[in-house]
Amino acid sequence: MKRADFPQEIQDLISAFKRLPGVGPRSAERIVVWLLNGNNAVAGDLEKSLGRVKSGVARCTVCGFYQPRDSECTLCTDPARDAASLCLVEQPTDVLAIDKTGAFRGHYHCLGGRLAPLENVGPEDLLIDALVARLKQGEVEEIILALGSDVEGEATANYLADLIRTQFANIRVTQLAQGLPAGGGLDHADEVTLFRALDGRRLL
Amino acid sequence: MKRADFPQEIQDLISAFKRLPGVGPRSAERIVVWLLNGNNAVAGDLEKSLGRVKSGVARCTVCGFYQPRDSECTLCTDPARDAASLCLVEQPTDVLAIDKTGAFRGHYHCLGGRLAPLENVGPEDLLIDALVARLKQGEVEEIILALGSDVEGEATANYLADLIRTQFANIRVTQLAQGLPAGGGLDHADEVTLFRALDGRRLL
Repeated sequence: MKRADFPQEIQDLISAFKRLPGVGPRSAERIVVWLLNGNNAVAGDLEKSLGRVKSGVARCTVCGFYQPRDSECTLCTDPARDAASLCLVEQPTDVLAIDKTGAFRGHYHCLGGRLAPLENVGPEDLLIDALVARLKQGEVEEIILALGSDVEGEATANYLADLIRTQFANIRVTQLAQGLPAGGGLDHADEVTLFRALDGRRLL
Repeated sequence: MKRADFPQEIQDLISAFKRLPGVGPRSAERIVVWLLNGNNAVAGDLEKSLGRVKSGVARCTVCGFYQPRDSECTLCTDPARDAASLCLVEQPTDVLAIDKTGAFRGHYHCLGGRLAPLENVGPEDLLIDALVARLKQGEVEEIILALGSDVEGEATANYLADLIRTQFANIRVTQLAQGLPAGGGLDHADEVTLFRALDGRRLL
């Protein structure tokens, strides 16, 4: 007697879902069974959307943000944005987070990651050449380093600050303030956060 | 200034993922960003698998289990399975769970759900006509009702038991035993489970 099992197509689909971040074997099976159980429309939408993203989305070669392929980058070409300030982030999602605050009205540059020697991510894997080319145009006056505040983010920030100061002495290099997060009591802050909050204290 | 946002294609893909069970807005975004960040191969596999399941998988019209389209059902055509006993389940996944125990070597019949008047699921929405046609062939001697032990599962079981006893007086209708789950102490069992465990007690 052959043990009952799903057809290969279904098993392949479960495997494909299982590879997504945060989706375990049980959720993958649950999603696939749900799709098969009369939710074909959602499966169709998902399939179509995946295809459209593959064929219709590209990264802007200037700033690294996502844009519809074969059309101009909505960020780079927005005349309302201040060309004098450039915010450097790791990922396109960081752009959304910063832009939502409304505190920044300049341009963005997405590196596409951070330097991570242990994972073989070197300067050539990030959008650094494009950054240098951009700065050479001479419009940028301030560059804000908005990288993660962990070890790799700081190492990347230091590397880039050195590079920019060497080649572009006129550009002001700044970094996001570090300190207590909003709404957090002192008892919830770790030692490093408290140290930096003290170190960066401001006159009231 | 236009607020920064992902291209429509990416937003659509996030929406499509958000509709899957157990995937919230944050996980949907995380999955899509992960796919975009150099995991195109996984996106391609997912797209292809979805297409293959759509075009290559069908439900067997006899037993309701999934099978490759245009080929015989692997369960219905397995000569090693005992044609005299039929196990009635709600969903194809239940078939895998029961078959894994190794305690049953007969055929299966997947209803595709259970009677749920509140959700407008009536007998005509389940694979009941196919079940009656199957029983009319006269091979089945015992039918095991392996439906859920909740209210709707029991209502469905009662409905089907009545239907089978009326039309097929020779077929033995049985139901899965109800009682304490394996490994559970008495203090973890609810009142109904304990009642049924007592009610169904067996001579040692």
